[in-house]
Amino acid sequence: MSGGRIICVGLGPGDPELMSVRSDRLVRGAAHVAYFRKKGYEGQARRIVEGMLRADATEYAMDYPVTTEIHFSDPEYNRVMAGFYDLWAEKLCDLAGTETVLVLCEGDPFFYGSFMHLYTRLRERCAVEIVPGITGMSGCWTATGEPITWGDDVLTVVTATMSEADLTARARETDALVVMKIGRNLDKLKRALTAAGRLADAWLVERGTMPDQKVHRLAQVPEKVPYFSIVVVHGQGRRP
Amino acid sequence: MSGGRIICVGLGPGDPELMSVRSDRLVRGAAHVAYFRKKGYEGQARRIVEGMLRADATEYAMDYPVTTEIHFSDPEYNRVMAGFYDLWAEKLCDLAGTETVLVLCEGDPFFYGSFMHLYTRLRERCAVEIVPGITGMSGCWTATGEPITWGDDVLTVVTATMSEADLTARARETDALVVMKIGRNLDKLKRALTAAGRLADAWLVERGTMPDQKVHRLAQVPEKVPYFSIVVVHGQGRRP
Repeated sequence: MSGGRIICVGLGPGDPELMSVRSDRLVRGAAHVAYFRKKGYEGQARRIVEGMLRADATEYAMDYPVTTEIHFSDPEYNRVMAGFYDLWAEKLCDLAGTETVLVLCEGDPFFYGSFMHLYTRLRERCAVEIVPGITGMSGCWTATGEPITWGDDVLTVVTATMSEADLTARARETDALVVMKIGRNLDKLKRALTAAGRLADAWLVERGTMPDQKVHRLAQVPEKVPYFSIVVVHGQGRRP
Repeated sequence: MSGGRIICVGLGPGDPELMSVRSDRLVRGAAHVAYFRKKGYEGQARRIVEGMLRADATEYAMDYPVTTEIHFSDPEYNRVMAGFYDLWAEKLCDLAGTETVLVLCEGDPFFYGSFMHLYTRLRERCAVEIVPGITGMSGCWTATGEPITWGDDVLTVVTATMSEADLTARARETDALVVMKIGRNLDKLKRALTAAGRLADAWLVERGTMPDQKVHRLAQVPEKVPYFSIVVVHGQGRRP
């Protein structure tokens, strides 16, 4: 544990001004910067810090070997992804023997973040630190202009990858609802919210807090939505 | 809507370095700064910005007329609090006719924040803007050193004010759990988590990200806990 360390910085929902003072300072001072991205793309985390990195910073683009080409329930997905995380844990840990390495993470690292898969591999072997960030969902509910939870409201956060029946049940049983990972599951999600009687109160936020942010009523959204989309149903709890 | 405006800035979980770059700049530049607090106390929001305000800033301490002396189910609580919010909405709106007024809010303003009660009264009458913040719960799960949600985990956020039976059911039916507003409900919460078979996996974080932060296993916490305490049960979902 001598020498450097690995710091994973939460970058917040997208607007660079919503990064914490601490993450901002670490990003601007870093000599070694790693980030995940889909192969062939710039990557959302890297995009957020555009113009902020030192001119002499060394970048480590961690290209996912697969994203949606293999379903996550396929053992092959697991094998390939585990190998990928093992490899990068090894590389970053070696580097952290002498250097401080920053890993960029959109949103809040411990809330559905990819870094968690490196974290479990790294924590026993080198010094690792996490800087929390504003979640994508906070950015999105702020964008709707309506508070998400009041008084004793229950908030449920789900991913749209679950079954239609489960989505319906979760939507029925909660006050406020946030749905992540929408992508190809948009139609299923609409059916589930319709069945739960909550479609009319659901909002879809695309690229919350980013310059091209869009807020729609979910019932009116087009068939395809970008990956950085979140659905929000606001709580209606107690308010004096 | 001419002249000034009201900006509610999320201050994050407690560590001033976890404030967003935007909130930090607004706090340091503000001429008029309002914040809620319990009468006779400094107030958590004000404490976070200690040493950051301009020497000539005018402060508006909005002292809650009641906190726990009257139960929130009592109509009298509602009447008193509604009057309090009406009064401050009026005052801040008058001021915002010519000045920009900052309202400080710990955590994220739209997530169980008191400002929401001013917001609904102000939004039709003057220009209001919200800057999101890192939630207290993000600060707390980061403090535990364990990710909160993996893969397709469901996260449920509840307040410990709900009934023991409801708390038990919510704890049983979710992957990850966050419990807010603990205070006097600590014993009830422990019984509910025991009934749901989740007490052993529950952590209590006091004053997450603040200098006197404490992380305990819930089963081992003392009888009384400070108001800024959050209970966390981590999800155990899919991980390659």
